Amino acid sequence: MSASVIPTPQDDVTVEVAGVRIGARHPVRIIAGPCSVEGPEQFLETAIAVQRAGAVLLRGGAFKPRTSPYSFQGLGLEGLRIMRQVADRLGMGVITEAMSAEDVPLVATWADMIQIGARNMQNAALLRAAAAAGMPILLKRGITATVDEVLAAADAIRGWGNDRVVLCERGSRTFEPSTRNSLDIAAIPDMQLRGGLPVIVDPSHGTGRSDLVTPVALAGVAAGADGVMLEVHPNPATALSDGAQSLEAGRFGEFMRALDRVAAAIGRAA
Amino acid sequence: MSASVIPTPQDDVTVEVAGVRIGARHPVRIIAGPCSVEGPEQFLETAIAVQRAGAVLLRGGAFKPRTSPYSFQGLGLEGLRIMRQVADRLGMGVITEAMSAEDVPLVATWADMIQIGARNMQNAALLRAAAAAGMPILLKRGITATVDEVLAAADAIRGWGNDRVVLCERGSRTFEPSTRNSLDIAAIPDMQLRGGLPVIVDPSHGTGRSDLVTPVALAGVAAGADGVMLEVHPNPATALSDGAQSLEAGRFGEFMRALDRVAAAIGRAA
Amino acid sequence: MSASVIPTPQDDVTVEVAGVRIGARHPVRIIAGPCSVEGPEQFLETAIAVQRAGAVLLRGGAFKPRTSPYSFQGLGLEGLRIMRQVADRLGMGVITEAMSAEDVPLVATWADMIQIGARNMQNAALLRAAAAAGMPILLKRGITATVDEVLAAADAIRGWGNDRVVLCERGSRTFEPSTRNSLDIAAIPDMQLRGGLPVIVDPSHGTGRSDLVTPVALAGVAAGADGVMLEVHPNPATALSDGAQSLEAGRFGEFMRALDRVAAAIGRAA
Amino acid sequence: MSASVIPTPQDDVTVEVAGVRIGARHPVRIIAGPCSVEGPEQFLETAIAVQRAGAVLLRGGAFKPRTSPYSFQGLGLEGLRIMRQVADRLGMGVITEAMSAEDVPLVATWADMIQIGARNMQNAALLRAAAAAGMPILLKRGITATVDEVLAAADAIRGWGNDRVVLCERGSRTFEPSTRNSLDIAAIPDMQLRGGLPVIVDPSHGTGRSDLVTPVALAGVAAGADGVMLEVHPNPATALSDGAQSLEAGRFGEFMRALDRVAAAIGRAA
Repeated sequence: MSASVIPTPQDDVTVEVAGVRIGARHPVRIIAGPCSVEGPEQFLETAIAVQRAGAVLLRGGAFKPRTSPYSFQGLGLEGLRIMRQVADRLGMGVITEAMSAEDVPLVATWADMIQIGARNMQNAALLRAAAAAGMPILLKRGITATVDEVLAAADAIRGWGNDRVVLCERGSRTFEPSTRNSLDIAAIPDMQLRGGLPVIVDPSHGTGRSDLVTPVALAGVAAGADGVMLEVHPNPATALSDGAQSLEAGRFGEFMRALDRVAAAIGRAA
Repeated sequence: MSASVIPTPQDDVTVEVAGVRIGARHPVRIIAGPCSVEGPEQFLETAIAVQRAGAVLLRGGAFKPRTSPYSFQGLGLEGLRIMRQVADRLGMGVITEAMSAEDVPLVATWADMIQIGARNMQNAALLRAAAAAGMPILLKRGITATVDEVLAAADAIRGWGNDRVVLCERGSRTFEPSTRNSLDIAAIPDMQLRGGLPVIVDPSHGTGRSDLVTPVALAGVAAGADGVMLEVHPNPATALSDGAQSLEAGRFGEFMRALDRVAAAIGRAA
Repeated sequence: MSASVIPTPQDDVTVEVAGVRIGARHPVRIIAGPCSVEGPEQFLETAIAVQRAGAVLLRGGAFKPRTSPYSFQGLGLEGLRIMRQVADRLGMGVITEAMSAEDVPLVATWADMIQIGARNMQNAALLRAAAAAGMPILLKRGITATVDEVLAAADAIRGWGNDRVVLCERGSRTFEPSTRNSLDIAAIPDMQLRGGLPVIVDPSHGTGRSDLVTPVALAGVAAGADGVMLEVHPNPATALSDGAQSLEAGRFGEFMRALDRVAAAIGRAA
Repeated sequence: MSASVIPTPQDDVTVEVAGVRIGARHPVRIIAGPCSVEGPEQFLETAIAVQRAGAVLLRGGAFKPRTSPYSFQGLGLEGLRIMRQVADRLGMGVITEAMSAEDVPLVATWADMIQIGARNMQNAALLRAAAAAGMPILLKRGITATVDEVLAAADAIRGWGNDRVVLCERGSRTFEPSTRNSLDIAAIPDMQLRGGLPVIVDPSHGTGRSDLVTPVALAGVAAGADGVMLEVHPNPATALSDGAQSLEAGRFGEFMRALDRVAAAIGRAA
């Protein structure tokens, strides 16, 4: 496919996570798992379902420090251990979020990639600690960060000596109330071109609505995303967090078949 | 493809324009042409190029009432005549914008579909006049209109007796300066589902950057858009308006091949 | 008061409306009246109340072309006549909106100042027609227009030969749902400084909430606004439009006393 | 002044900081100082100037963990010591920001009020640590936080047992590029009414432009703000951070005289 109408990022920039190469026109990588790790059965059941359908990396949240003291706060270290055990059993890598600089050593011990969440995109102490850990970093764009700002945050991490950065478009806050955020589809090729880094798309946070997750995921792949990260739950109705935007694990195979067709159409099938 | 992960609009809602049916999982329709009609040669050259590559409807602007008195103001009636002659010669339909209620009879005489521009989405006098003309209407979402508001404007047109409405997502104004507007990709399936109407995508205004037009057009198709409307010019560098976001006519064939592959992946090839 | 901390617009730019000079550190002018003229009694009762308390110009809407065909559409020509008769009886000027270019001659016949509404800020045909009418123009900033864009629209009117332009800050659309719009308080001095034109504030549309109209009006005056335009109704609960943001006529005297104190504090009491 | 047009917050809610009561129609409190503490002379010179003119509390930044590794990062503990020494010498209280939960004990040792910055408004670990410190907290609204969200964050602090919370309106990110942020003037009375807490205004971050700081500060006071926090520097042109929005210390007296007149007009002079 010629570069004239489809913008082409630099060909050699890839980031490897647990043996999986992301970026540079490698196949579109699927990263899936529940919003929060709720227990060993829930995480294992979800992981088996997503692996069988073609996901290559697992995701899950161990720390959920909500501002309300009454909400579920995550399983913490126990959650990290569950993710590691399941990932090892299935031979997969796992991505999870570090919420502050002091969490980084713990997360680095148990996970294969450190996620910097949207709220922390400009948390310099955390960026610096994650850079120092020497592991791959998934940097989510803040909900009101401009493209220039997310690229500046990535540059800071690289300035501190860590080049293994993957960006994630996950939607911005706008005036539109129908969706939780407004996913900035053009930012996917724009960040690839201007940042020279792999970019993945998160249709779960980008829409907040399970009925829109699939069309927005397909759109992200068609726009050139190097991966898709999404929330999957065995039973979204009972999820302790983000149920409304989680895809049901039993439907994940169907999701993957639709996604594979679009990936193949742009020359990036698995 | 099952309805479970891909939301499915009502199957029987289509709008016919000059013999072309838009919507209801018919093939993705391509509507192309220059921002402004600048003269017979420019419009004919562009029309031949886009038709050859697979576009089924032509677009062009005859009235460009800029707020600056020094800008190009469009060819007016002469522009309408040029579009009609070229469209008839090539056996195609043509879409153009009516800027005010009093322009509607003139536009209705020469065009096959009346476009309501983003700035006029809530111009009740214009909506009413367009409804009364009894022709198909392309209603563009305002740059800060919510999905609810564009659906309400479509309902008003239907309340005035005209059901032949196609919606168009063309981007919203947000805080992001990298692109002219931020295209709301999730609004495409959301407007189809909630409005029960065909929805097309405009990647030209949605990005304002010719290098991002193709990935965003592919994304729109993957998200389920019933058509793509885009600006094409024989030589964007010399265009009297919107050159920066126009695809070069000579590249349009390549654009269409990429788009056809994605349309086929979701079962909607031409 | 020195220019060093309070920015000072050019001293000689004023616009005269029915004998009232607006701008250039003249006293803060109060423009009040109902959203819609509903009949002679309602308009006269409101006008007497606001004049008694210190308002110097009347406002009211005659055309309300809502996008819903079921909403109140305004009294039209009858509304214009009622406003003129009441204004003449009380010796006041009256401001009303022209919704399209063809309404301008009619509005120019009956009113003392033509209002260009926020939705029409970039309606070039209307701006040109209003400019040609040779009357003072109140140009409302669009809900997503930047300061640069409203200044460009004012420049267009001046380019067409009419210098009698007053700008109006009336709030922008943002992500905040608590208020109808978010009033851009800094735009008031910024538009004065950069546009060299008088600027008034509209706290009714700027908030959409009658409980916030007074503090935001006082804020506008403290920020240097040359006038305040607000919606007042004898009985907001029964208003045919905009009741939720209208000040009750019986409370208008109290409003004016608070406002006069703030105007005096910045040297601009009536 | 009757409650009918000016909304009145609950009368008894005040927060005391170093002997200064904020809120409940007490006089408007002025909190001033440089963005960053750059050294003992700079901080002392600024503090003397602002105290002489009427400021009652000092502010200053000790930690500036920028995302760029090349920017000034603040003086850290040395900055805290300088602020304490100057504050004690002048008999004033001092407010400074804690950037993370682990900074709280240190900040609590040296300052009289802990500031939670806009980027950290939903940093639950930090809110919890600040609540536990048992000191007054200044909670700045996030640049894209809704009013509901800042009230929820304040409720979380109160849920963790600390009622001494003051809110701060400091502007939101919008589409308008003329100012660094768009200050939400209506949010000042709205947060007072709905949150039952004192609210102060920050015109420095709210505008990013020193020429607009004074009109926006006066506007905030007219809208009912319980205090004004602003950045003042002996020589803004040489400031290591935020020079463009800092008021020159030599002009602070003039600023205070204008502000006192407006405060007196609404019955809240010092």
